[in-house]
Order: sequence, then C-alpha cells, then structure tokens
Amino acid sequence: MRAVTAPEPGGIDALVIVDRPVPEPAAGEVLIRVTAAGVNRADLLQRQGFYDPPPGGSDILGLECSGDIVSVGEGVTDLQPGAHVCALLTGGGYAEYVSVPVGQVATVPQGVSLTEAAGLMEVASTVWSNVFMMGKVQHGETLLVHGGGSGIGTMAIQIAKAFGAKVVVTVGSAEKAQFCTELGADLVINYREQDFAEVMTEAGIQADVILDIIGAKYLAANVSVLATAGRLVIIGMQGGIKAELNLAALLSKRAAVMATSLRARPVGEKAAIVSQMVAQVWPLIADGTVRPIIHATLPLEDVRQAHQALEESSHIGKVLLTL
Amino acid sequence: MRAVTAPEPGGIDALVIVDRPVPEPAAGEVLIRVTAAGVNRADLLQRQGFYDPPPGGSDILGLECSGDIVSVGEGVTDLQPGAHVCALLTGGGYAEYVSVPVGQVATVPQGVSLTEAAGLMEVASTVWSNVFMMGKVQHGETLLVHGGGSGIGTMAIQIAKAFGAKVVVTVGSAEKAQFCTELGADLVINYREQDFAEVMTEAGIQADVILDIIGAKYLAANVSVLATAGRLVIIGMQGGIKAELNLAALLSKRAAVMATSLRARPVGEKAAIVSQMVAQVWPLIADGTVRPIIHATLPLEDVRQAHQALEESSHIGKVLLTL
Repeated sequence: MRAVTAPEPGGIDALVIVDRPVPEPAAGEVLIRVTAAGVNRADLLQRQGFYDPPPGGSDILGLECSGDIVSVGEGVTDLQPGAHVCALLTGGGYAEYVSVPVGQVATVPQGVSLTEAAGLMEVASTVWSNVFMMGKVQHGETLLVHGGGSGIGTMAIQIAKAFGAKVVVTVGSAEKAQFCTELGADLVINYREQDFAEVMTEAGIQADVILDIIGAKYLAANVSVLATAGRLVIIGMQGGIKAELNLAALLSKRAAVMATSLRARPVGEKAAIVSQMVAQVWPLIADGTVRPIIHATLPLEDVRQAHQALEESSHIGKVLLTL
Repeated sequence: MRAVTAPEPGGIDALVIVDRPVPEPAAGEVLIRVTAAGVNRADLLQRQGFYDPPPGGSDILGLECSGDIVSVGEGVTDLQPGAHVCALLTGGGYAEYVSVPVGQVATVPQGVSLTEAAGLMEVASTVWSNVFMMGKVQHGETLLVHGGGSGIGTMAIQIAKAFGAKVVVTVGSAEKAQFCTELGADLVINYREQDFAEVMTEAGIQADVILDIIGAKYLAANVSVLATAGRLVIIGMQGGIKAELNLAALLSKRAAVMATSLRARPVGEKAAIVSQMVAQVWPLIADGTVRPIIHATLPLEDVRQAHQALEESSHIGKVLLTL
C-alpha cells in the first residue's frame, strides 16, 4: 500500500511516498481502508524530527482518518466490516490502510460526508479533552482560544458556544477574523494588529479557560488574563518551550497551568475521551449546530503542498488528504 | 478585648497587643470566646507587610482558633452558645473574641482538647482542599510534601497515609526526619544533606501530587519528579515567586501546576471545604488515626516568641497562643 513517511527530518521535501505492507488488525483493533486523512500541525513537527511517534507506534504520518472497515481483530464485536467510520490515530493515517484500537473509532456522524469526517476526530477530541474534561469550562464562562482560524480553533468556537460559553479568539488575518465572528466568536482579536492581553484587559474580559498553542511566548500574557480559578491548558508550543512563570500572579488567582497532549495517552484514556466526545459532540453535528470546517482536500500525492498550507497558516479549518 | 496587630510592618517587634472592642456577630456568623489561636506562617508574612487581609477583613492577626460560642447572629440555627468549636478565620484569631461565618466553624472532634483544637482547622483545611480537592490524590498514589515537620506537613502525612497514599517528605533536620518517619512517611529526605529530586530519581519514585511551600526555587525540581498526569500544588513561596517553567517537560508528563490560597476564597467555598474536610478527617481524629501535633503552647503575651519559633523553623507541628 502507499503511505507517507519522513525518513530524514526536514522541510516539506522530507515527505516521501513509500510502499508498505497492509497492516493486520491485532486483537481489539479494526482495519480501515482510508478514504481521507486529516493533516495536523503535529504532523509537521514529526516531519521536522521534533515529535517522534510513541514507542511501538507507526512511522507513517497521520493522526486521524476516515474510511470503511475491511476487517476486525479478535474480540471486536461492536463494529463490522463495511461500516463508515472515522478514527483517532497514534500514527499511520497517511496510508491506504490503517489498523487502530476500536475505542478510537466512531461511526461517521449524520450529515457529514465520509471525506469530511477525516478532519473531525483529532480536533473534536482535542477540544473535548482539553476544554471540557481538563479545563472544565462551564456554561457562562469565558474561553480564550489562540489560533481561532485553525482546525482546532474553528471546532472550539462552535462546541464552546453550543455549551453556552463566551468565546474570545486570536487570529492572524482579517479574513480569519471575519470567519470566526460568523462561527459565533464573541470577541476576535487580530494578534498582528493588537496585543490580546491589552484588548481583553481594556474590555474587562478575563478567561476562565484558555486553550493555548503558543506556549512560552504567551505564558505571562495568558496568566495575566486568567480569571480567578482560571485554567490555562497548553497543547502547543509554537512560541517556545521555556518562560518565566510568576507564581505570585498564579496564586493570587488560584489558577492552574496545564500542558497536555492526546497522542501519548494510553489506549484506555483515548477511548474514554472518544466515547465522551462522541456522546456530546456528534448530536451537535447531526443537528447542524457544529460543522466540520474544511479548507482544502488534496490527493495524497500533494502531501507536500498540504504541509505547505499549514506552514503558511493561510488556511481556515482543516486540510485533508484523499487516498 | 486584647488583640494582636502589626500596625507597622517589620520583625517580631512589630507585633503589638492592643485594646479593641468585642465584635458583634453579623447575620450568619457566630461570636467565639477564644481559648487558643493557631500561629501560621502566613501570619509572619502579614506581620512583614507581604500578606494583607482581604478587603473588609480584620487587621487582627490569626487564621484559626478554638473556643466556645457566646452568641450567634441572625439565621444561625445549627450552633448554640456554649458549644466548643474551632474555626477557620480570614483574620482576627489572636484576640479574646472573634466573629466568623458559621460555615467556617466546626465542633471540636472527639479526643482533642479545646486548646489543641486551635491548631486543627487551618492545617486540615489546607491539606484537604489542596491535596484531596485540587490535587485529587488517589489510593496508591505518591504524595510529596515539602516541609514535612510543619503543622501542614505533619497533618498531610497522617491524612494521606490514612487514605492509602505513599508519602515522601522533605525536612530540614534529623529530629524532624525521625518524627516524620514515626508519623508514617514512607521516604524522608533531609534537604540540607541531599537533593530531593536526585534522591527520588535514583529511587525511581515519582510524585502524583506535590504540596509545595517553596515556590520558585523548587519549580524545576518539582516538575522533574512529577509523574505522568502529576499535579503540583503551590501554596507558599518561601523560595521566591518567579522561575522558569519548561512547558515541554510539563507537556510530556501531561502535568499541571496550580497555585492556591485558602484565605482569599469566598465564604461559600470555605464552607464547602470545611464541610467536606470535617466529614472526612474528623472521624480519623476521633478514632486516633490522625492527631494534632503541637510543638508549643504560649500565652498571648509571648506572641513575639511564637513568631520567632516559626521563623527559626525549629518547631515540629503547631505553635498555639492561649488567651
């Protein structure tokens, strides 16, 4: 089967299409014939050599996909061959076939095409596990999301609004600002023109939960806009990994700084996240409250172009690869 | 009535005994005739001018006391004059009388004298709210407590052991080490002789929860010994307030850094903490599993000597003032 790896870390040219054997589903796994795979920023980091797969994981890129089940491993009873599904992967999505633990697989929600479904699992699971399970955002609270125009950002706006939160986002262009406003964001700040902490402070707005992909560069500003008992959840470090933390500022707010990733979690935790996320978010997709935002759909051969799009941050929503 | 304040910030000589009117219990409050008051490290900070009472709070020092109820405010029905109680205070404990919201008051547990009870509320509420409610330590998990010989430390060891946690503590003397071992600590590290992070790393021990009073100076070492999904709860900053945080280290462990204080919480939150703590900890005191550790009991006139004892860190357990 065709698959994409990055045997030598580097730029987009490091991505190569290779020939690999079709995997066998182990006990508790299902084998999916991939229709489409979602491209995530973590894939870019992996290509660059900064985000290796966990021990035992595939070196094929790709953290999510959609497709149909072709066979199931021992002990799998609740999904059958032929089912249209999407899956959260530890790797292996940029390929014609991938095998995955059944707890990380969900049937495609109503109203979404099989291709579109490829971009749902990673962003919805990321938003659900970080904003709701870890950050515990409540109805009426304020969520700040950095990168509102990203796949995660556009999903976070929609889900958080559906659960009654106020949503503030930062974006890098007027086009993204317009799009996020249309998606329901209450306050949109273009970080190229304004300092988000200044804007929020002047507006008297504090964040109960922050979903952050910037890390070090925003740490002090993020803490400065946290509300009492606020929770800063860091899932990316595009702005560096080391920064000074003012513990007195944190203590005066009785606040928490958390940093997490989805990929390294054990299978059981991923299954628990997917199960809870599907129960809460799939109905919102089925009734049209939340929709997948797709920026572009490219054939697997154009994987370098797909990475280029994310690197330029010009996209709004997800970039997908079709097999 | 006699009361202790620190009108001009400074050393122990800043403490003065003044004459103040006996307070009136407002609606929802009880007036306590104080038998004894606990001395806390926060009182030393307040005396030095670094920890002012919250807006509207008393300038009289003292965050906990015991005594008997002499009158009750409007709407108080579940406590009666004459009851022997102990109380968590926002201030005002170093005085002959103090008025306090009824949710921060508990009847003295069985097997504890009225004087000893003065040292229970602050430490037990601090341990319960931070180690159990925020840190969520579980049976079989490992708790690291810095300052194992302090009032908070000696209480944390006992409660955490009673709930099935393994307990690692740091202490500053051989005498404290011996005492903490007798209280049930599984591993005791004298920080004057050994680096706690090195000792734990060599022993292959990680902390699921850390209760920290040092702050900046220990931040990196604390993060280095955190287990996957570990929770660092900072309640003091004896080692400074600003330090570099390595977000990549935090993210690789999916860990959290929290900083909290009890005093600034709203009345409703304090009542919830006290209620849950009394339900869980009072039975352990009544059956002898947990006991208050009292270092010294001094008359109010010797308040400067009491502060001196805490400043020298020579004490094990609580220092109390009697009225």
